[in-house]
Amino acid sequence: MNEANDRDPLHHVLIIGCGFGGLEAAKTLNRPGVRITLVDRSNHHLFQPLLYQVATAGLSAPSIAAPIRHMLRKQRNATVLMAEVTGIDKAQRQVLLGDGQKLGYDSLIVASGATHSYFGRDEWAEHAPGLKTLGDAFQLRARLLSAFEQAELSNDAAERAALLNFIVIGAGPTGVEMAGTLAEIARHTLRNEFRRIDPAQAQVMLLEGSERVLQAFKPELSEKARKQLQALGVQVQTGARVVAIDAQGVELEQAGERRRIAARTVVWAAGVAASPLGRALEVPVDRAGRVVVDGGLNIPGHAEIFVVGDLASAQSVEKDGTSKPVPGVSPGAKQMGRHAALSILARRAGSPPLPPFRYLDYGSLATIGRKAAVADVGRWQFSGYFAWLFWLFIHIYFLIGFRNRLVVLMDWAWAYWSFQRYARVYAETAGSTQADKA
Amino acid sequence: MNEANDRDPLHHVLIIGCGFGGLEAAKTLNRPGVRITLVDRSNHHLFQPLLYQVATAGLSAPSIAAPIRHMLRKQRNATVLMAEVTGIDKAQRQVLLGDGQKLGYDSLIVASGATHSYFGRDEWAEHAPGLKTLGDAFQLRARLLSAFEQAELSNDAAERAALLNFIVIGAGPTGVEMAGTLAEIARHTLRNEFRRIDPAQAQVMLLEGSERVLQAFKPELSEKARKQLQALGVQVQTGARVVAIDAQGVELEQAGERRRIAARTVVWAAGVAASPLGRALEVPVDRAGRVVVDGGLNIPGHAEIFVVGDLASAQSVEKDGTSKPVPGVSPGAKQMGRHAALSILARRAGSPPLPPFRYLDYGSLATIGRKAAVADVGRWQFSGYFAWLFWLFIHIYFLIGFRNRLVVLMDWAWAYWSFQRYARVYAETAGSTQADKA
Repeated sequence: MNEANDRDPLHHVLIIGCGFGGLEAAKTLNRPGVRITLVDRSNHHLFQPLLYQVATAGLSAPSIAAPIRHMLRKQRNATVLMAEVTGIDKAQRQVLLGDGQKLGYDSLIVASGATHSYFGRDEWAEHAPGLKTLGDAFQLRARLLSAFEQAELSNDAAERAALLNFIVIGAGPTGVEMAGTLAEIARHTLRNEFRRIDPAQAQVMLLEGSERVLQAFKPELSEKARKQLQALGVQVQTGARVVAIDAQGVELEQAGERRRIAARTVVWAAGVAASPLGRALEVPVDRAGRVVVDGGLNIPGHAEIFVVGDLASAQSVEKDGTSKPVPGVSPGAKQMGRHAALSILARRAGSPPLPPFRYLDYGSLATIGRKAAVADVGRWQFSGYFAWLFWLFIHIYFLIGFRNRLVVLMDWAWAYWSFQRYARVYAETAGSTQADKA
Repeated sequence: MNEANDRDPLHHVLIIGCGFGGLEAAKTLNRPGVRITLVDRSNHHLFQPLLYQVATAGLSAPSIAAPIRHMLRKQRNATVLMAEVTGIDKAQRQVLLGDGQKLGYDSLIVASGATHSYFGRDEWAEHAPGLKTLGDAFQLRARLLSAFEQAELSNDAAERAALLNFIVIGAGPTGVEMAGTLAEIARHTLRNEFRRIDPAQAQVMLLEGSERVLQAFKPELSEKARKQLQALGVQVQTGARVVAIDAQGVELEQAGERRRIAARTVVWAAGVAASPLGRALEVPVDRAGRVVVDGGLNIPGHAEIFVVGDLASAQSVEKDGTSKPVPGVSPGAKQMGRHAALSILARRAGSPPLPPFRYLDYGSLATIGRKAAVADVGRWQFSGYFAWLFWLFIHIYFLIGFRNRLVVLMDWAWAYWSFQRYARVYAETAGSTQADKA
């Protein structure tokens, strides 16, 4: 297809990945003179900030995911292909797909994101699944719900106790949300539904290696988050380094001492590693595998290749000329996607190059559970009920599609009044059944 | 636990399976003096008549499934256990569970339903999945959607054509619903969303071994259903016997001639076999493995064991003394579940035995697609738009839970105006990924 470029009057932009970065780039490139091919290995764009809600049975999958090709159906210059990218040939300007096809490009935007990392201990994955895809969320939902089911069935007291121990590793936003929601499920949602066990006896433990939860927030907010978690019934253990995970539980080191906690359900929310496509670019990457990009979000020597979103290790160049790292959050990915697309359009138009990328920080938000959240928005730091309402409003606002906003709002109102989580079903797929038995 | 009966003043009813029959029995037994244990291998009751909507991305799974223990949370005499039943010991009055536990009973209601049957050709299952569980529906959804995705990706014209051929085997209500909905998806839902293929070129073929579709309906309605299917773009082939299914397509015999149809997506809606638990009872079963029960829905020599629903081969004793088979539909299962429960209560109360089971036939309904359905209700037979509205109303009325009714009504209204199907996402679970590659 590369050969066709001489005849093709349109500038062909290939975008890999349709997360927040790739999608924003595609939308920005809805201009004459450009054609886009968007390649993603799943058929949907996922609103990842609410993925933990699918895992904890508060929302159904279609409420937070939309078919990519449906979102872009009116953008006639965009072709969507569902495929795995297996290689990038910078010299030939070609991308290799899993089925052997090659796709040429004039400009390339790599936005394939991140996955969970077990810091080299990949054998932990089986016992402590992470949360990045809808498949992960379904697997987690099946594990969480089936732990209670198995406890109700079991006649062995020690087994029952281990089944009712839930450990969340990593106290970033995802870990905090998971732990808070799990405590709410045990104390409220499942109340009165079991006859042999009392779900409220379940223990939810949040393990964090560093000294505080929500490291990315100011220390006062971290402290407030810890208190809100404890009020919800979560045992928060900071300075707790995980040294082993197996089918029986977790071994951790804390204040120089080692101990073992028996648990059947362990959730991994600790480490994130960039998508392996970063290494395929054969340019410098940081410790997490993220591709180091310049102020134009390009890789060295290739002004036609951009890396955006969680896959990029990018700096934001501030007004005073200093620079600071762009955080791995969805507004960062969106802004990078838009910057890359505008750069391509500027170059096409013969306009002067854009100034270096600058990240506009709108603040940070994390929810903890029912009526509990922390917010750090510019000058304002707040927590509790108002922060929770603010979190709710922002997340519904940024959800994609009118229908999803309406349904999620309805589901949340319902859950608020009834304490119920309506998506408490799991299928007997190969995946979940194996998870149950693991 | 059986030994405990002498001390236990409550009559213990064990119910296996929480479909329409088991659930109705459990609810009817909400009386003093009785305790119930309900065992099911999944955590949810499934509204099976709408399962095809989950498979065809029109509804999300939680809209048609509810956690069993949540439905029964206020019924304090009911214990719900999620487990597989592996055996029944009639002499000891015990049921064996997958984890080795034994559960005693005073009365037993077996309501474990049916699964699909490939008439001894189990190797077809891999290529032509059926539709009985949520897991099946997710797998089918992934296959249907990924066929269009793969066609868009493919550069091979023959491969593309095979990917856009959809074959549904069996023209009972499920097969007819699947075929009609598939045609609607290809012609309307996916319109304008692809750049390399035209989804409207997809061929949907409905194969039926007998001479007409919807055999259970009157011939005039079968004929109307066929015409409505054809108007939606479905190729209806009756008198077509399937002789082989493999990864490349289907081989069929029709009017003495054999031919092969290349297709990557084949749906099995032809055969149903009773759950293997029927054989575990070691009593006479019919050809489909259903347990032959008497007028009290009991098995021979065991007045304390009832078989209800799709697992039972039961006769309805009419007012004139003649009898006719009870059809395998949800009202039949419900009525049998209720009859068994009332029999147990009557015996406990020392009341005279109930008259033999009589099935109250409220009529038959089948939807075909957008604005198309057939209805056979007592004296009235009707089809088309009005039958479709009637079908819609009935299905929403019988759905479980206010929330589900509201959401399904909203989703259908949305789908009606927009031609969209909002649940067009599928996860990258082990199950669906393998399905994609199969």
